[in-house]
Amino acid sequence: MFKVDLNCDLGESFGAHKMGNDAEILDFVSSANIACGFHAGDPTVMKDTVELALAKNVKIGAHPGMPDLAGFGRRNIAISPQEAFNIVVYQIGALNGFTTALGGKLEHVKPHGALYNMAAKDPLLATAIAEAVYAINPELVLYGLSGSALISAGEKIGLTTASEVFSDRTYQENGSLTARSQSDALITDDRLAVSQVMTMIKSGFVQTQQQTKYSILADTVCIHGDGLHALKFAQYINQTLTENSISIVPFR
Amino acid sequence: MFKVDLNCDLGESFGAHKMGNDAEILDFVSSANIACGFHAGDPTVMKDTVELALAKNVKIGAHPGMPDLAGFGRRNIAISPQEAFNIVVYQIGALNGFTTALGGKLEHVKPHGALYNMAAKDPLLATAIAEAVYAINPELVLYGLSGSALISAGEKIGLTTASEVFSDRTYQENGSLTARSQSDALITDDRLAVSQVMTMIKSGFVQTQQQTKYSILADTVCIHGDGLHALKFAQYINQTLTENSISIVPFR
Amino acid sequence: MFKVDLNCDLGESFGAHKMGNDAEILDFVSSANIACGFHAGDPTVMKDTVELALAKNVKIGAHPGMPDLAGFGRRNIAISPQEAFNIVVYQIGALNGFTTALGGKLEHVKPHGALYNMAAKDPLLATAIAEAVYAINPELVLYGLSGSALISAGEKIGLTTASEVFSDRTYQENGSLTARSQSDALITDDRLAVSQVMTMIKSGFVQTQQQTKYSILADTVCIHGDGLHALKFAQYINQTLTENSISIVPFR
Amino acid sequence: MFKVDLNCDLGESFGAHKMGNDAEILDFVSSANIACGFHAGDPTVMKDTVELALAKNVKIGAHPGMPDLAGFGRRNIAISPQEAFNIVVYQIGALNGFTTALGGKLEHVKPHGALYNMAAKDPLLATAIAEAVYAINPELVLYGLSGSALISAGEKIGLTTASEVFSDRTYQENGSLTARSQSDALITDDRLAVSQVMTMIKSGFVQTQQQTKYSILADTVCIHGDGLHALKFAQYINQTLTENSISIVPFR
Repeated sequence: MFKVDLNCDLGESFGAHKMGNDAEILDFVSSANIACGFHAGDPTVMKDTVELALAKNVKIGAHPGMPDLAGFGRRNIAISPQEAFNIVVYQIGALNGFTTALGGKLEHVKPHGALYNMAAKDPLLATAIAEAVYAINPELVLYGLSGSALISAGEKIGLTTASEVFSDRTYQENGSLTARSQSDALITDDRLAVSQVMTMIKSGFVQTQQQTKYSILADTVCIHGDGLHALKFAQYINQTLTENSISIVPFR
Repeated sequence: MFKVDLNCDLGESFGAHKMGNDAEILDFVSSANIACGFHAGDPTVMKDTVELALAKNVKIGAHPGMPDLAGFGRRNIAISPQEAFNIVVYQIGALNGFTTALGGKLEHVKPHGALYNMAAKDPLLATAIAEAVYAINPELVLYGLSGSALISAGEKIGLTTASEVFSDRTYQENGSLTARSQSDALITDDRLAVSQVMTMIKSGFVQTQQQTKYSILADTVCIHGDGLHALKFAQYINQTLTENSISIVPFR
Repeated sequence: MFKVDLNCDLGESFGAHKMGNDAEILDFVSSANIACGFHAGDPTVMKDTVELALAKNVKIGAHPGMPDLAGFGRRNIAISPQEAFNIVVYQIGALNGFTTALGGKLEHVKPHGALYNMAAKDPLLATAIAEAVYAINPELVLYGLSGSALISAGEKIGLTTASEVFSDRTYQENGSLTARSQSDALITDDRLAVSQVMTMIKSGFVQTQQQTKYSILADTVCIHGDGLHALKFAQYINQTLTENSISIVPFR
Repeated sequence: MFKVDLNCDLGESFGAHKMGNDAEILDFVSSANIACGFHAGDPTVMKDTVELALAKNVKIGAHPGMPDLAGFGRRNIAISPQEAFNIVVYQIGALNGFTTALGGKLEHVKPHGALYNMAAKDPLLATAIAEAVYAINPELVLYGLSGSALISAGEKIGLTTASEVFSDRTYQENGSLTARSQSDALITDDRLAVSQVMTMIKSGFVQTQQQTKYSILADTVCIHGDGLHALKFAQYINQTLTENSISIVPFR
């Protein structure tokens, strides 16, 4: 019997600016990465989202991002490793305030957007992030791109790591995601997307755009929370994996 | 033998914008209220200030404020009690991230500026803040204006409270601080300022501007951290209280 | 033949956080109030919205708000008149940058949310705002609540003013809007909403909640831009007014 | 007779966070680059600084930066050329609001920090910035690093450009500034600093760290405004240049 964690970025509304279908999508995932106010989210959104996740019994993770609300945390910012450490401690701490205040527990940390992508490649940044997570609580699970510098840094420091794969993104022969600027970056056929995930989970590899097989660890699958299709896809992948003997369970 | 806590607002720099003499003033106080990024402070400043306080063995408190960096948290904002709860949980959580990451301990919470003043008068806001503190950790001490709605709300919910008095502000016959808009709001003579504090500690009252005696509890004295005079005054009050048999010790 | 201006708040998206149906609603209004980055909007949204308005030949106004993105500019902030002057100059200037850069022209200024409501009642704040508008360009039209302190301040300083009425809000016998906290604050029946507007335009009064007639000047009608119903209502009021011999034309 | 413009970055305070000696330094410079609220400055600071500059008859320029207050605009952010266009239009527009409101005139634009440095090397970013300046007002002078892509882009689009040199920075043989990470990046001897400037103005070259002579155009010299030494140096360079037959005059 196989198993996998389904995670989704939630709590991305900001004040009057609503984003995502948080309440609905929580029915189909096992872990929620909750924005911490830097790239999205605000204290009220965070509180409401933690409440929702607790009510639906979905594991809660911090989703720290770049200090860039206007850019939704997607723009690379040349922060130093020390700054990365500090903004990650701050954001985990803030979300931890809500899980504590509401009687819940923080389970994992997954960096967002540019912070995630930069930490996938930059060992110094990755180490700073892993140190921040470890310093707050060595029991936290660090989520990162499967095969990335962030996963390596987490393992090195002694954190449990969860290797993340993507259902709707194609891969290059070196295991990296095809850049979004490429026309073949996205998998828009839901069946192919889920099929890619099933192969990764059951066979441990992904078929790359260069038609090679790349070994990949698939502890957790990232699905998106925004837009009507996201909700439909969440339901579809949840159901299809289950029907194919892959249990949807929290990473730990 | 008498005793009192001396507290000071610290960590109010922001990025390249420096404020205060944090390293120096820590030699003269027993408790530090550290800004949490809303009215002042940023993750790097918070980390550095927590480190300094730990090194000098000064107790660490969170100093949450209004979301108003441009106004330094001094402008009243019509936030709801629920919003107050959320921004206080967020900020305490964020600072707690740093104390945890650096092996320290969060001891108290003192709201800043407009949040402090509004909570002194508005029982609903005061209750929301007290609930936020309690929800994060019922062992935290809540600092508030002596005799204020915030102290009442803290006691009611079961928190330990520390009643704060001011050395350099005059008082009205109802126990409130003379508004800063009044010409007689400030005590600029250092000897008079310390003398007022000693009377409050030893005799339990303050001489009001109406020449009445107002009963007041003086658990902790607020001193300021910015400006050259602040540093000199911190040294002076510390020394004078000590010489007059009043120990400077953390509230708990 | 009667005429009236239909205005709508636009450009309220922020980064990845979308809000409103700007492109569609522009077909039904004669004036657009464009957010300037303080309560909503960002430079890219502002540029795109100015472009849209120019393409649809809709008059462009600045819609300055409180520095409160998380609160969408709806929370009262105790700013001084001088601060009000400065934030209004800043925001008008910023939007004017885009109208100039795109070959358009700024026609009017309408404060947003808490700034609008506070300026309706506080003559000092109203005067500061009117002075800011005048100082940038005395030809700008100042939009304010019909009968408000803002309209008085604008007239006194020599600005042309446009008195704004609401279709979906009920009025009190003193001419103020029924507070949103009251159960009868909103008119949810579209026919009644448009009927109220037509009476204001043609007969110069509004039926108040106390069943009195209050004289009211209706230069411009505010309609909302967010939500599916907003779009439908915009179309409906535009069509119904036109069918009833009331032309929809810019204020000037 | 030689002449040169002395420019200084001003208006970098933010709310209660003071920075710089604006009032004093204005006595020694001919042009002021005023921060526009993104990396430093706020509406009140901008208004006060424009007033000061007008009172001292110093030319006023906009000093737009990255949207990064915490990083003081010094961290590279991967913005697109379109975003650069938009944030520059916004910031110039905002400052122009104050010059207009106070009866002054905007003379020039100089990007700040990371925006300045990125635009010195990236032709697409440089072009976007030049287009923004031109779109607002083709009469504005564009300040950029002497020999940089920004100067080229400005000239290509038809703007008047002012080539900026640094007194306290050393140069590499390709004309670039020695990176701050290098130990020999700064010239700390005031006499050498002024001497370097005089050579650039009078002889048209700079002695590089590789002991070569690099041809350089010195229309304007950047001096710093923060710190006590800044003020002293401003006075010293102003006096020394004047004594050496180099007039300090605005670029145009």
